Amino acid sequence: MLEDADYRCRLPDWRRYLMSADDAAQLIRDGMTVGMSGFTRAGEAKAVPLALARRAEQDPLQITLMTGASLGNDIDGILADAGVLARRMPFQVDRRLRGAINRGEVMFIDQHLSETAELLRNKQLNRLDVAVIEAVAITPEGYIVPTASVGNSASFVAQAERVIVELNVAAPAALIGLHDIYLPDMRPERHPIPIMAPDTRIGHPWIVVDPAKIAAIVVTEGHDSPSTVTPPSDATRHIAGHLIDFFENEVASGRLTPSLLPLQAGIGSVANAVMHGLMEGPFEDLTMYSEVLQDSTFDLLDSGRMRFASGSAITLSQACGERVWHNLERYRDRIVLRPQEISNHPGMVRRLGVIAINTALEFDIYGNVNSTHINASQMMNGIGGSGDFARNGQLSIFVANATAKKGELSSVVPFASHVDHCEHDVDVLVTEHGLADLRGLAPRERARRIIDHCAAPFFRPALNDYFERACARGGHTPHCLEEALSWHAAAQREGSMRSVLDR
Amino acid sequence: MLEDADYRCRLPDWRRYLMSADDAAQLIRDGMTVGMSGFTRAGEAKAVPLALARRAEQDPLQITLMTGASLGNDIDGILADAGVLARRMPFQVDRRLRGAINRGEVMFIDQHLSETAELLRNKQLNRLDVAVIEAVAITPEGYIVPTASVGNSASFVAQAERVIVELNVAAPAALIGLHDIYLPDMRPERHPIPIMAPDTRIGHPWIVVDPAKIAAIVVTEGHDSPSTVTPPSDATRHIAGHLIDFFENEVASGRLTPSLLPLQAGIGSVANAVMHGLMEGPFEDLTMYSEVLQDSTFDLLDSGRMRFASGSAITLSQACGERVWHNLERYRDRIVLRPQEISNHPGMVRRLGVIAINTALEFDIYGNVNSTHINASQMMNGIGGSGDFARNGQLSIFVANATAKKGELSSVVPFASHVDHCEHDVDVLVTEHGLADLRGLAPRERARRIIDHCAAPFFRPALNDYFERACARGGHTPHCLEEALSWHAAAQREGSMRSVLDR
Ligand SMILES: CC(C)(COP(=O)(O)OP(=O)(O)OC[C@H]1O[C@@H](n2cnc3c(N)ncnc32)[C@H](O)[C@@H]1OP(=O)(O)O)[C@@H](O)C(=O)NCCC(=O)NCCS
Ligand SMILES: CC(C)(COP(=O)(O)OP(=O)(O)OC[C@H]1O[C@@H](n2cnc3c(N)ncnc32)[C@H](O)[C@@H]1OP(=O)(O)O)[C@@H](O)C(=O)NCCC(=O)NCCS
Repeated sequence: MLEDADYRCRLPDWRRYLMSADDAAQLIRDGMTVGMSGFTRAGEAKAVPLALARRAEQDPLQITLMTGASLGNDIDGILADAGVLARRMPFQVDRRLRGAINRGEVMFIDQHLSETAELLRNKQLNRLDVAVIEAVAITPEGYIVPTASVGNSASFVAQAERVIVELNVAAPAALIGLHDIYLPDMRPERHPIPIMAPDTRIGHPWIVVDPAKIAAIVVTEGHDSPSTVTPPSDATRHIAGHLIDFFENEVASGRLTPSLLPLQAGIGSVANAVMHGLMEGPFEDLTMYSEVLQDSTFDLLDSGRMRFASGSAITLSQACGERVWHNLERYRDRIVLRPQEISNHPGMVRRLGVIAINTALEFDIYGNVNSTHINASQMMNGIGGSGDFARNGQLSIFVANATAKKGELSSVVPFASHVDHCEHDVDVLVTEHGLADLRGLAPRERARRIIDHCAAPFFRPALNDYFERACARGGHTPHCLEEALSWHAAAQREGSMRSVLDR
Repeated sequence: MLEDADYRCRLPDWRRYLMSADDAAQLIRDGMTVGMSGFTRAGEAKAVPLALARRAEQDPLQITLMTGASLGNDIDGILADAGVLARRMPFQVDRRLRGAINRGEVMFIDQHLSETAELLRNKQLNRLDVAVIEAVAITPEGYIVPTASVGNSASFVAQAERVIVELNVAAPAALIGLHDIYLPDMRPERHPIPIMAPDTRIGHPWIVVDPAKIAAIVVTEGHDSPSTVTPPSDATRHIAGHLIDFFENEVASGRLTPSLLPLQAGIGSVANAVMHGLMEGPFEDLTMYSEVLQDSTFDLLDSGRMRFASGSAITLSQACGERVWHNLERYRDRIVLRPQEISNHPGMVRRLGVIAINTALEFDIYGNVNSTHINASQMMNGIGGSGDFARNGQLSIFVANATAKKGELSSVVPFASHVDHCEHDVDVLVTEHGLADLRGLAPRERARRIIDHCAAPFFRPALNDYFERACARGGHTPHCLEEALSWHAAAQREGSMRSVLDR
C-alpha cells in the first residue's frame, strides 16, 4: 500500500506527513468545525471519520460537519450513532442520521448546494478548523487531486486551518486529469466565470493547497458505495415516456433542437429512469450540466447519444461501476468534474439554459413542490441542488410517482405540507399518469391540468371536489384553509389518505 | 407638441408613422398578446392602453398583457374594469385589477421578473403580436430611447411583430444616455454578461429596432404617477435601526466593508425606510444593484453616501420627483437603467453578492416567507423580483411589520399560508421588535430566534406554545398539522388572529 502511495504522492519527503487514521483523527477536537470531501456518496473521506467514531466511544466529542453532499459507506449513520454530529450541513441521505435529525438530536442545516462554499468564504458560517479530503494523487507541489467527487473540497481546503489528506490508492489513477477546479474570486472583484458550454475547462486538474496546511496524509484503499438506484419500474418507465413525448414535441415545435439543452438530473431512481428514456427518441449530441453523473449518463455516453457530461461527482451502481471504473480512459474527453458551486452556479444554469429534472415527494394542485419533508415535519434528505437549477434554468421539471406507500398516499395534494419550490419555479410536472405543462398558466388553470394529468385517478374526484369548493370561496389561489392540510393529518393518523375519499 | 416631437424624433420622415392613440389601438385586436413598457409605475405607455379601454366599451376585446412590472396612472385598473385583460403577467399592484384576479376573472401569471424575457425569447409564452413602448426620443435609425424604465421593453421590441411607440415629449430629455440596453445572446451560444460592478456599462443607450416593425408613433405628454410610499413611521424607523445595527456589526466583524455590497431594496414603504436608514452609520461608497430606484436612492446619492445606483426604473414621490427630474443631469454619471433581466439576473446577483432587502407579508416560525398571498388565497401584488435576489445574493433579508390591521394579525405565524421564499432563501428577518439572524441555524433554532426577536410580544406566548407542542411530536421542522393554519382560519373568519391567544 505504501509503495502505491509513493507512486501516487509526488510531494518530496511526503512520509513525514504519514499518519494512521486514528492519529489523524486526534487533530479533530470537540467543538470543531470540520469539512469533509464527499458528494452523493462519492469520494468521501473513509478512514478518519470512522476513527473519529471509534474514538468517540471512549472520549465523547461533537463537531459541526460540512460536506459536499451525502456520504457513502454508512459514514453519516456511524457518526450519528456515535453521537459525533452536533451540526450537519448541507445535505444527507442516511436513514440513521435522518432519525437523529428528526428527533432533534442533530441540528441539520439544509442548504442550496451552490451556497455552502459562498457562506464559508464570506465568513457567514463558522471558520473551518480541519478539512479531510480524499485524494487519488498528490502532486510534487502538494496539490490534491480529488477522487470521484469535487463537491466543496476545494473551498474546504482554501478555508481550513489544517488539511488531512486521505490518499486512496484503490481509487482509479485514471481519475487524474478529470477534474476542473476553479474558485470564484473574492467579491467585490469577481470576474465572470468563463464557461460557455458544459465542456469548457477553466481551472486546474487539482486543488491548490499551501503544503504548510497539510497536517496529515492517511493512506487508505477503500471503495465508494455503489448507488442504490433501483431499476426502472412500470411507473418510472411511464414517467420517462411522458417526458420523452414532451421533449419530442418541444423539438417539433422549434422550441428545442434535437440536442435539447444541457440536462441536469436529480438524485434517485425516478430521475435516473427518465435519463435512460433519452436513449429512445430523436435526440443526439446531448450534454449534461448536472451535479452527479449516474448510470444513465454513462449509458448515454456509450450509446453515442450524449457528447459531454459535466458534474461534481460520479455515483454508479455495482454493475455500471465495473464497466466504467476499469475503462475510465474511454470517457476522459467526455466528462469533467467541477466544484459544486460551479456545477450548480445560478449564473451558469441561467447562461446555459439548463433543463432541470428533479424529483418531488409531493406537489399541490397549484404546482408548489415539496422535495424534503414528510407531513410538513419529517426531513427526508434535503433540498440539495434542486433549487439552484429549478429557479434559474430554462425549463424546470419535477417528476414523482403519483402515489406513495402502495397507493395509500397521494403525491398530488390540495396544499403542499412544505414548499421547497414555489409555483414560479415549476414549469412541468410528471407522474406515471401524465404530464402537466404549466407554462404560462395561472393557478386556477394549473390546478385543472395537474389534477387531470398527474393525480392518481382514484384521488382525482377528491381533488376536484376540494378545488371546486375552494373556487367558490374565491382568490387567485383558492383554498379551504381548515381543510387544506387534512390529507396530511389523515396520513399521519392513519398512514393513509384514503379516508378523504369518503367525504 | 408636434414641434417638440420633431426635435425628439430624428427618424427621417417620421410623420408618416404618426397616428392618434385611438388609431394605433386599432392595431391591437381581440385575442392578441401585447407587451407594454412600464415597471413599478414608471415609463408605462400612457395613451394607447386608455384608447384600448375606450374602444372596449363599444367593441369588447380581450388581450394577454405583459409588462415589465406594475403600471401607473391607474392603467391596470382601467383596463381591468373595461374587461380588456384576459391574462396579465408578470406583476401588478393595482387594487381593481387585484380584485378581478381574486375573483378569477383575470388570469394572472405571477413570475420572477428576470424570467419573462427568457420565456418569451425561448418561445415558451405566446408570440408577441404588438409592443407598445414609451420613448423619450427616437434616433435617426429609428432606435427607441425609453423613458423612466427599461423593464422588458427591449425584449418586447425584439420579439413583437409590430411596434407602437408612444413618444412622450413631457419626459425629461436628460433621460437620454441614462440607459444601458443589452440583451443576452440566444442559447446555446450565450456569452458571459461582462458586468463587473453596478456601474459597468455593456450595451447601447437605446433599444435597437428594425424600423420596418414600427407600426405607429403616438405623441403624448403624460407624466408617471408619483410613488405612494408613505413616510417612515415609528415601526419602519425601528426596523431600519435594527438593520443598521446589523450592518454595523457585519462591518465590525470583518464580514462586510463600510461600502457593504451592492444593495437591492424591494418596493414598498418599509424597504424605502430601511434604505433611508443607511444615511446614518459608518457607511460610505455604497452602491445599488436593484430594480427600482426610489426616493431613498437619490437621498443617498445626494448625501454622498452612495456612489452609484443601477436599476431598471426610477419611481419617485411627488416631492423627490420635483427635485430629481429637473436636475437629472446631476445624476447622469451615477445611475444607469438596465433591462430587468439584467438588473435581476441570477448570475449578476451571485457575482456581485447583492444584499437583498425585501418585504414579507408574513413569515413562519421557521423562516418561510409569504410575500404575495393573504390567507393562502388572495393575491396582493406578486413575487416581483424578490425571488431573483433572495435566492442568489450574498445576504437575503426580509422585513415586515410584526402585525397588520392594527395588531389584529400577526405577521409571524406557525405556518406560512403561502411560501414564496423557502427557509433556504432567508438569512435575516426583521420587524420593529428586533432582528433574527438565521445564518447557520437549523429550523428548531430558527424558531426560537424568530419568536423571541421578531414576533409582537403579545403573540409570543401562543407561538411558543405551538412550537413546544410541535417539538413534542418530533421532526426536523416540528408542526401540529391540524392547527398549523388555524391562525389564518381565525383571521378569515373573524378578521383577527387574537382568538388564538385564548387557547
Ligand atoms: C424526493 C426524493 C426523496 C425522491 O427519491 P426517490 O428515490 O426518487 O423516490 P422514492 O419514490 O423511492 O421515494 C423515497 C421515499 O419517500 C417516500 N415518499 C415518496 N413520496 C411520498 C409522499 N408523497 N409522502 C410520503 N412519503 C413519500 C417513498 O415511499 C420512499 O420511502 P421509503 O424509502 O420508506 O420507501 C429525492 O429525489 C430527494 O431527496 N430529492 C431532494 C433533493 C434533490 O432534488 N436533489 C437533486 C439535486 S441534488
Ligand atoms: C409585501 C408587500 C405587499 C408589502 O408592501 P408594503 O407597502 O411595504 O407593506 P404594508 O405594510 O403597507 O402592507 C401592504 C398591505 O398588506 C397588508 N398586510 C401586511 N401584512 C399582512 C398580513 N400579515 N396579513 C394580512 N395583510 C397584511 C397591509 O395591511 C396592507 O393592506 P392595506 O393596503 O389594505 O392597508 C410588498 O412589498 C410586495 O408586494 N412585495 C412582493 C414583491 C416584492 O418583494 N418586490 C420586490 C422586488 S419587485
